[in-house]
Amino acid sequence: MSDRIYLDWNATTPLRPEAREAMVAAMDLVGNPSSVHAEGRKARRLVEDAREAIARSLATVPRRVVFTSGGTEANVLALSPDLKAPAGKVGRLLMSAVEHASVLAGGRFPLSAVQTIPVDPSGVVDLGRLKTLLAGGPPALVSVMAANNETGVLQPVSQAADLVRQAGGLLHVDAIQAFGKISFDINEVGADLVTISAHKIGGPKGVGALVLGVGVDDVAPLLRGGGQERGRRAGTENVIGIAGLGAAAKAALAGIATDQVRIGALRDRLELGLRQTPGVTVFSSQTARLPNSTLFTAPGLKAETAVIGFDLEGIAVSSGSACSSGKVQPSHVLEAMGVSSAAAQGAVRLSLGWSTAEADVDRCVKAWRKLSLTLLKGRDETVVERF
Amino acid sequence: MSDRIYLDWNATTPLRPEAREAMVAAMDLVGNPSSVHAEGRKARRLVEDAREAIARSLATVPRRVVFTSGGTEANVLALSPDLKAPAGKVGRLLMSAVEHASVLAGGRFPLSAVQTIPVDPSGVVDLGRLKTLLAGGPPALVSVMAANNETGVLQPVSQAADLVRQAGGLLHVDAIQAFGKISFDINEVGADLVTISAHKIGGPKGVGALVLGVGVDDVAPLLRGGGQERGRRAGTENVIGIAGLGAAAKAALAGIATDQVRIGALRDRLELGLRQTPGVTVFSSQTARLPNSTLFTAPGLKAETAVIGFDLEGIAVSSGSACSSGKVQPSHVLEAMGVSSAAAQGAVRLSLGWSTAEADVDRCVKAWRKLSLTLLKGRDETVVERF
Repeated sequence: MSDRIYLDWNATTPLRPEAREAMVAAMDLVGNPSSVHAEGRKARRLVEDAREAIARSLATVPRRVVFTSGGTEANVLALSPDLKAPAGKVGRLLMSAVEHASVLAGGRFPLSAVQTIPVDPSGVVDLGRLKTLLAGGPPALVSVMAANNETGVLQPVSQAADLVRQAGGLLHVDAIQAFGKISFDINEVGADLVTISAHKIGGPKGVGALVLGVGVDDVAPLLRGGGQERGRRAGTENVIGIAGLGAAAKAALAGIATDQVRIGALRDRLELGLRQTPGVTVFSSQTARLPNSTLFTAPGLKAETAVIGFDLEGIAVSSGSACSSGKVQPSHVLEAMGVSSAAAQGAVRLSLGWSTAEADVDRCVKAWRKLSLTLLKGRDETVVERF
Repeated sequence: MSDRIYLDWNATTPLRPEAREAMVAAMDLVGNPSSVHAEGRKARRLVEDAREAIARSLATVPRRVVFTSGGTEANVLALSPDLKAPAGKVGRLLMSAVEHASVLAGGRFPLSAVQTIPVDPSGVVDLGRLKTLLAGGPPALVSVMAANNETGVLQPVSQAADLVRQAGGLLHVDAIQAFGKISFDINEVGADLVTISAHKIGGPKGVGALVLGVGVDDVAPLLRGGGQERGRRAGTENVIGIAGLGAAAKAALAGIATDQVRIGALRDRLELGLRQTPGVTVFSSQTARLPNSTLFTAPGLKAETAVIGFDLEGIAVSSGSACSSGKVQPSHVLEAMGVSSAAAQGAVRLSLGWSTAEADVDRCVKAWRKLSLTLLKGRDETVVERF
């Protein structure tokens, strides 16, 4: 598949060379990090080195980093009424309507204690409504993502943190898509809990971390047994995966400034190209977004068919979230933005990354021009430019 | 550390060449298994190939295999009062006193609904007591491990399954130490849930599986969100790790017969050598055990000091379970067997594997002879041969 073009970086990224190298090296480490012999101590050192890299990348300290099996586990670990915090217990969960499925599932809160914060038509969380919701009940755990995985929209997490703190609550930020793409300082944001995932930044799938801010003393463990991760998460550590996460974070952070300027320019070029086709709408294009993400549609487009069409042209793209085992469902993100079901079912996501080249973007635009001739047949000319 | 000898295979094993090869190959697969494009489908195929390998190795079908982040997660996933089973709900948890810490924590049962099944002085679960306990309350989920990680003792899981079935309960078997060392057919055993872990059979740390027997329709998910693993376990799959698990299982099962005869002979040679030192006791030596495990002590021995002593001699050994972050605690397994606290604190575990050679065993015996001269100074001659 060497001549294929991969434009689905928000679903998962290729492994960075630095991560691969760290993982291959970790394969030689025999020991269990909990063992006291030399082999065990070597494995322990590698895990702790990765922990330090993650801590540094979020401007915090190693003991606040809890390694997990990925973003989903970190989100479920975070979303608990039994968090230990100086401010006391939280009695309910408020989450934005555009969160990832693993947040929307509500973690360990009973459904009756979960409320949704709406977003505006551009996909930005409604801070006025958050304030009203906070005032209308006991202290809440609030979950607002840093950047949306479908639209790329950046959420006002720092302002949300102020409101939440004033109301005596706690803020969880799912930073999976933002981490490594834009700078993220846990204390500057004022987040109490932050989720990151390795495979969105060039690390392996199946490893992530929950990082505790100063407002949280401890989590309520989901996996109990051994004393790993300071008793916060039992189970032998995924040493190879953690090594990959640490190396990927270092590499992502080192290149963050230059990469994102370059990727942002490519994304703009891509959107300019797509818009040559009449009726193309890029969702949330007037809003602050991640520099790598484009979610677009055109009247009459069916995303499922478009993804297959692009695939046959050698280009990997996505129809919104890829997190539901091959099922193409209308996007809850677009629904929350007030997009009609018909338009939502036509939304195609193109997401770029560090190895995306200008030629890839140009080939994608060319493929789109070709595909649009057949895919947009029988379209009506409904304009959906309000997003 | 090329001249070091690794005799701590029950804590974790070296990566098998087959697993390493599969993992390195998986590093080239860019896609998310949930994505519909070619890259996604390739990753999906790899995950499903591994699932088939695991299913075959336990004589069951792929749809009954749920990949997890390891043995601990699989145990916690299994131990729930909300299992869906044709026989109906289970109201309590009975577990043997020698289970792994991740089982002893009780999973998602309230502590008030958990009872312990004692073991006899050789470490074998007391089936008479199991029968009495089963008769004394509502249908129970029973957790009995296939082989103990410290002593290597094989439990009568098949007989336990008969008793549990007659009482309308369900049997969970933590087969982490047995899987890949002795043959294990889920239906022949009659287990309703089976836990396995990759890093005990030459796969990577941080991946495992829960396998459902015919008595269980479904688990109560611990991680909710995306639809991965048939909705039983949300989160992007650890593709590289799962590839390693599949390859390791194939390799382990292929060599199981010859490997274990060879390893059993080495273990006997090792124990013969250890016993040359007066007062050495091998725990559970008169009981059916895994062919690779030796747990021994001698009067006056301190395990913590012995592990360091062996380490300085270039030999990695363990003091019972390695699952509690560097902490050396008296073994709950030996305590359950009625061993005195003093004797338990002197228990050293030697565990062998496929790359263990006769020369390694001989060097270990030689090191023990040397170490025993200093480590057993001031010993009393209490004989603990009853185990």
